[in-house]
Amino acid sequence: MTDTSRPASDFDDLFRASLIRLFQLRRDVRHFQTKPVPMDLLKKLVRAAKLAPSVGLSEPWRLISVESDHLRKQIVDEYVAANQQASELYSGDTKGLYQSLKLAGLKEAPVHFAVFADAEPAQGKGLGRQTMPESLEYSVVAAIQNFWLAARAEGVGVGWVSIFRPERVTAILQCPPSWRLVAYLCVGYPVEEHETPELERLGWENRDNAQDAWQVR
Amino acid sequence: MTDTSRPASDFDDLFRASLIRLFQLRRDVRHFQTKPVPMDLLKKLVRAAKLAPSVGLSEPWRLISVESDHLRKQIVDEYVAANQQASELYSGDTKGLYQSLKLAGLKEAPVHFAVFADAEPAQGKGLGRQTMPESLEYSVVAAIQNFWLAARAEGVGVGWVSIFRPERVTAILQCPPSWRLVAYLCVGYPVEEHETPELERLGWENRDNAQDAWQVR
Repeated sequence: MTDTSRPASDFDDLFRASLIRLFQLRRDVRHFQTKPVPMDLLKKLVRAAKLAPSVGLSEPWRLISVESDHLRKQIVDEYVAANQQASELYSGDTKGLYQSLKLAGLKEAPVHFAVFADAEPAQGKGLGRQTMPESLEYSVVAAIQNFWLAARAEGVGVGWVSIFRPERVTAILQCPPSWRLVAYLCVGYPVEEHETPELERLGWENRDNAQDAWQVR
Repeated sequence: MTDTSRPASDFDDLFRASLIRLFQLRRDVRHFQTKPVPMDLLKKLVRAAKLAPSVGLSEPWRLISVESDHLRKQIVDEYVAANQQASELYSGDTKGLYQSLKLAGLKEAPVHFAVFADAEPAQGKGLGRQTMPESLEYSVVAAIQNFWLAARAEGVGVGWVSIFRPERVTAILQCPPSWRLVAYLCVGYPVEEHETPELERLGWENRDNAQDAWQVR
């Protein structure tokens, strides 16, 4: 790409309105169709992810597509164990509601991406991450958010599963010890689309109303 | 919003192409004009941020607009101290290049947002964050990425400064101890727009070419 200075108005009102609409329609998907996602489309989504900002231009994102039945079974087993442990925290009605929630689409989703941050990337020469090394993981999250938005714009759903012991996933997938699990993503076409988060529809939690509030110092 | 089931094709090819263009044009800005950003526009960007996913619908983002000259001076002093420390890591040509980089726009940017994650939010009832509590900070990063993209679509620049000792910033801004600094954002109209990251233009680092690569297991 050429490096020209550009005007601020690269985007118009219609695009901006659609972008807000995309933010509104992006859901954390738990119910997937099993039909495959075309490889070209997956590549497009990964390219979109890698256009994210990264601390010191370190690009610490590391993606693993988990495809073998053997490994997927181990991932599901790990999820079940971690979820069992988590459910012990609740009691009474809350426990019943927790246990009724579908918190992963691991069995149906055609694509599984385990997404890691390399805690020791050579690229970037350490810039910007001396006092906040977690900025490496944060760079990977920005890439995931790009991926998620690009996917939703294509009608593809993403579900972020965080109910794992991260070091167990790193071990199952035989990743280098410097890689830290940031997210385990289920990817595929959703069974249905919704405007409100599933946790809100099912009565677990509501969004806060103060959507444009901040504090001043 | 009503909760209707929706078709997958809410977005068209033109929007999708513009979205990729937005990802490409989003820069980490260091050179700001001092002219103010309208309040209505800031509110719109914050609403966009808060449409991000959050673990267990916990919405742990906490935003502080840093406005007083007194506090801004303390923030700049903290940045200078942390940056001095960081520059000691380099030597020779790399040190000279490091010291020539403009790594913050703290003095010019009209808007400063310190963005925190509440590590103990009541909202969300702990769901999804037992084994990976860092998913709270990750939710805040997703909100920042929404903010960043929405800002760029409006011609507003964002610069993420991570060269701070986070607990020092929390203390300067007198935030509750459960709040963890995720990012310090400089926000304003950029002096110029570029297609390539400043760190690449100035010879610090290049982007990796494997933009659609991943590993398979």
